[in-house]
Amino acid sequence: MAGVAKPLSALLLCSLLLLCTSTAMIHGKKMRLASSRQPCKRLVFYFHDIIYNGKNAKNATAAIVGAPAWANRTILAAQGHFGDLVLFDDPVTLDNNLHSTPVGRAQGLYFYDGKDVFTAWLGFSFVFNSTEHRGSINFAGADPLLNKTRDISVIGGTGDFFMARGIATLMTDAFEDDVYFRLRVDIKLYECWEKA
Amino acid sequence: MAGVAKPLSALLLCSLLLLCTSTAMIHGKKMRLASSRQPCKRLVFYFHDIIYNGKNAKNATAAIVGAPAWANRTILAAQGHFGDLVLFDDPVTLDNNLHSTPVGRAQGLYFYDGKDVFTAWLGFSFVFNSTEHRGSINFAGADPLLNKTRDISVIGGTGDFFMARGIATLMTDAFEDDVYFRLRVDIKLYECWEKA
Amino acid sequence: MAGVAKPLSALLLCSLLLLCTSTAMIHGKKMRLASSRQPCKRLVFYFHDIIYNGKNAKNATAAIVGAPAWANRTILAAQGHFGDLVLFDDPVTLDNNLHSTPVGRAQGLYFYDGKDVFTAWLGFSFVFNSTEHRGSINFAGADPLLNKTRDISVIGGTGDFFMARGIATLMTDAFEDDVYFRLRVDIKLYECWEKA
Repeated sequence: MAGVAKPLSALLLCSLLLLCTSTAMIHGKKMRLASSRQPCKRLVFYFHDIIYNGKNAKNATAAIVGAPAWANRTILAAQGHFGDLVLFDDPVTLDNNLHSTPVGRAQGLYFYDGKDVFTAWLGFSFVFNSTEHRGSINFAGADPLLNKTRDISVIGGTGDFFMARGIATLMTDAFEDDVYFRLRVDIKLYECWEKA
Repeated sequence: MAGVAKPLSALLLCSLLLLCTSTAMIHGKKMRLASSRQPCKRLVFYFHDIIYNGKNAKNATAAIVGAPAWANRTILAAQGHFGDLVLFDDPVTLDNNLHSTPVGRAQGLYFYDGKDVFTAWLGFSFVFNSTEHRGSINFAGADPLLNKTRDISVIGGTGDFFMARGIATLMTDAFEDDVYFRLRVDIKLYECWEKA
Repeated sequence: MAGVAKPLSALLLCSLLLLCTSTAMIHGKKMRLASSRQPCKRLVFYFHDIIYNGKNAKNATAAIVGAPAWANRTILAAQGHFGDLVLFDDPVTLDNNLHSTPVGRAQGLYFYDGKDVFTAWLGFSFVFNSTEHRGSINFAGADPLLNKTRDISVIGGTGDFFMARGIATLMTDAFEDDVYFRLRVDIKLYECWEKA
């Protein structure tokens, strides 16, 4: 009898374990382990990029600072802007209105790295310092601009977003000429830590 | 008797726990916790970088877009190319043949940042859009070129590589003059999430 | 009696589980799950950046390689240096003395991306190759320079810092003109893996 009972109770233990582990995790690092991939936090923002073009110094929030030998730093290069590297400090808003009160800043770089296709690469942070959010979220990844939505990685965070990881889905919400564009960023965090 | 039995059964529980936890994790986030450090996924690719040198516009896959005041953007700078910043959109292949059908693109930047030694730094993505792989893997790290193998970090992933983390071991597989080089990338993921 | 005993023992199991899980984790991936947010590893370093200014080629450890159309690559731009992109290979020391024996190198890039405020963004690695530390730590994040301390993300590591994640708190320890500055970096890792 004891020989049968032991494997059974081990099995029972394992089953209980499966149920309890998720709970245990939630008390420390709130990491959703669900195969359903439910985010532990979700946030949607817009950011607004106005590239310096020689005439808009006052309004510009971004500037070309690197370009290939055949291009210049005032006009985006031909052929998918290949080789243009842009630094930016853009307002972040809750809706798609450029003139809404910013809730943070998007700061970092992007560059056009597609020779045959129109594609970019981004490394940047959202920096928050308001009553609602304090801290930063860091992003990196490829941005194949012609796709309606593009996923990049949330590689870390600080403050309210301490140790965050996840996926940010980008969508070009608007663009005008080669000067203004607006990105919608749907941030889904899958690793969240509880408040200290 | 009961006083002796309790610590023993707690010990037994803990032992069972150790065995079961790994299994429990696998049902959600497939995170290998082994001290043996077995990757949960391993992939080997090659990518091929052809730097624009003023004469190879058609074949070039990369271009110098930043250089220090004493250098230019057509020829790599002297002294370990210190200060040259290169953007690239390189074909990724399964073997070391430049002319093999690409399975993806390597897109990002590298720059030579060693003044006394020959070293670089990389931030880039592998972008896949084939029947075999869909999604991206994001990398960042220092690349001390003179070492036979160099480890950088896999900082995130999307699609098939959702939330991936790990190590990529780089090896210079070939280089010709200052124009072509081929890197072998051995990707070992230690954090993998199951399919949704 | 058995009907009462079962829920009780399940509760007991769960409680034990909560106690044991942390231990279990430590045997594999040493991930501190405490809501107290105790780092599993903590390291403090200094690094020393000497920007090339046209006159200090011998001592310089960093150079401007990207700048906006209105600026040059020898003198940092006006208005918070907006648009200047700098590559560096700086000595890392244990104390705040520039002339102490370096224990590693800080290699990467930073750029000034604030148009209205003085702020920067960093992507870099600490590279160690000594008896004490071997491997690298990779960092990324926004650096609002006017704050006394700023948090960025530890996005990965290799070697002794295999798969590390955490927070690095930066502090400007000194700066002289627009040529020399020294950063104190307080690295707190919250995800550590045990040695292989």
